[in-house]
Amino acid sequence: TVMEKPSPLLVGRELVRQFYGKSSSYVHGGLDSNGKPADALYGQKEIYRKVMSQNYTNCHTKICHVDAHATLNDGVVIQVMGLLSNNNQALRRFMQTFVLAPEGSVANKFCVHNDIFRYQDEVFGGFVTDCSCYWNTTSCC
Amino acid sequence: TVMEKPSPLLVGRELVRQFYGKSSSYVHGGLDSNGKPADALYGQKEIYRKVMSQNYTNCHTKICHVDAHATLNDGVVIQVMGLLSNNNQALRRFMQTFVLAPEGSVANKFCVHNDIFRYQDEVFGGFVTDCSCYWNTTSCC
Repeated sequence: TVMEKPSPLLVGRELVRQFYGKSSSYVHGGLDSNGKPADALYGQKEIYRKVMSQNYTNCHTKICHVDAHATLNDGVVIQVMGLLSNNNQALRRFMQTFVLAPEGSVANKFCVHNDIFRYQDEVFGGFVTDCSCYWNTTSCC
Repeated sequence: TVMEKPSPLLVGRELVRQFYGKSSSYVHGGLDSNGKPADALYGQKEIYRKVMSQNYTNCHTKICHVDAHATLNDGVVIQVMGLLSNNNQALRRFMQTFVLAPEGSVANKFCVHNDIFRYQDEVFGGFVTDCSCYWNTTSCC
């Protein structure tokens, strides 16, 4: 028997079901009605709704750099910098942070506890040496 | 009596002593001898040595966006995008991830469990729609 290509609906549902938990947090760029970076969502149901609404087609990611450190509770924190193109649009720089939590039941199995994704152009605007900051400070490092 | 301005040595020592722990991880940009992003350091002693070697003078930070989510073990994961200028050099875009861990002893007191800082120009190079990737993949999102 030939295995059929799964529908995007099925893929999205399985992704969220398998990798996100009831207390997971998720934000995937986007601006709110005030033009400020959109708020995060929490929980499998909300995340699933959001993932399905994002309508990925011909979506490509280029991972430019990954930092991964051991963190609290045997978790892993991962900082990703890369480029993403959706629906044959131009590549956009993004920055993403994951916190993965071990699934107590199964060895070496993790779920996504936090998933924070921002497009640079939505944060910095067009400026190279400035940014469209709605919260902004200058301080000594 | 007049309070004297603390020396950078004292400030650096106090910063690391108060906010970083024995199991903290730390990377603050920079390239290794192969021109690849430098590895992380672990533990107060190593972090202190690194902080003191970075020789911050006239250092200014501009915070462009902050995401902060509750994470494992009552910790907080924070993704920061901003601009940093040290020693009157041009502002450079950076991306930074913190994981803060509560200090069991004191309420609302946290220490830095992970501190991952990368300059964008060291990761993406000059390219806007490409990057100087040493680890690189293209995949469906």
